[in-house]
Amino acid sequence: MVLHVLRRNLLRIPLLVNRNYCSVAKMPSALLLVAEGSEEMEAVISIDVMRRGGIDVTVAGVTGTDPVKCSRGVVVVPDKSLDEATKDTYDMVVLPGGLGGANTFSQSNKVKEVLQAQEASGKWIAAICAAPIALVSHGICKGKTMTSHPSVKDKMLPGCTYSEERVVKDGKLLTSRGPGTAFEFALDIVQELMGKEKRDVIVPPMLVKA
Amino acid sequence: MVLHVLRRNLLRIPLLVNRNYCSVAKMPSALLLVAEGSEEMEAVISIDVMRRGGIDVTVAGVTGTDPVKCSRGVVVVPDKSLDEATKDTYDMVVLPGGLGGANTFSQSNKVKEVLQAQEASGKWIAAICAAPIALVSHGICKGKTMTSHPSVKDKMLPGCTYSEERVVKDGKLLTSRGPGTAFEFALDIVQELMGKEKRDVIVPPMLVKA
Repeated sequence: MVLHVLRRNLLRIPLLVNRNYCSVAKMPSALLLVAEGSEEMEAVISIDVMRRGGIDVTVAGVTGTDPVKCSRGVVVVPDKSLDEATKDTYDMVVLPGGLGGANTFSQSNKVKEVLQAQEASGKWIAAICAAPIALVSHGICKGKTMTSHPSVKDKMLPGCTYSEERVVKDGKLLTSRGPGTAFEFALDIVQELMGKEKRDVIVPPMLVKA
Repeated sequence: MVLHVLRRNLLRIPLLVNRNYCSVAKMPSALLLVAEGSEEMEAVISIDVMRRGGIDVTVAGVTGTDPVKCSRGVVVVPDKSLDEATKDTYDMVVLPGGLGGANTFSQSNKVKEVLQAQEASGKWIAAICAAPIALVSHGICKGKTMTSHPSVKDKMLPGCTYSEERVVKDGKLLTSRGPGTAFEFALDIVQELMGKEKRDVIVPPMLVKA
């Protein structure tokens, strides 16, 4: 009996160690903002692909927790309000496009604070389609090389060096162009936070063209 | 004064005629089903691209109007319950994938009725990823050539002739394979209901690779 209890307890030691280890090793995290008029494909492809990649994603409503009507009428419920969500910090802040949503991001002091804090702490920022105009409006990543949806190129200058690549990386900034580049954008986010191996694992089951 | 009123009323005539014309010429319509576990990228890409293409899309919750938690945690609010939505008829019924959602579609008598009525009236059905298993389960489009997500290929046989093309058209049935084929799938739907010209107009602003 004594031996049995002893053996059982000994066997538990590695388990406890592992449990502690797991609770300490936090998953890489991302904060994705949504507002009325956000482009639903860009938001949802980013969220879904990041979660497939093992990133802990929080979807935050810039104006609160109410359901958000996106640019083509899809209604999405945020996980949290931006005020609530920013009690935590995140490895990556992701802004989907859609002109209505991007204008809200551009005019929001709270979004400005979030982006400034992210940049100041040397963490990642990612923006797609019309959303990079919010970076320029708030003076974030000044002078860096960026892209955006072609229709808002004029609003991007002279705040950045403009590129027409589908996804552009400059330091800890990723920018991209539209719904049709959203898979590449989201997979690049996964690659930066989780590694190339993880990207390579999640691509085939999605049937994304290489 | 009399002349002024007369001119104003005369000017109104074409407007009234146009209004009547607009209310009579119904836009092509699609019914897209969602259930817990539906793949959010496949649902949202289909909805968004169809709406960009000018199709009148109704998003119907198979189990009601409550917000639906999709396969990677995105919460989407349906426009209507399936019961409410089926008071109308639609040119196309679209089933997104996600195994949880597809299983619900497969087990639902209401979904069976909708698909049977659609097939009997010679109208379009489209299903992507795991959703084609619902067609096979309900004996819809028996023996036609279809594709599906590779992981559910076994469940598709012997109910159909299996293809591994990214989008497969057989009569008024479109099937496809996964999130990475969803743009091609949705654009093919637009092409069938709205024409090739419309497809060609909506592709460039989305930055979808040709």
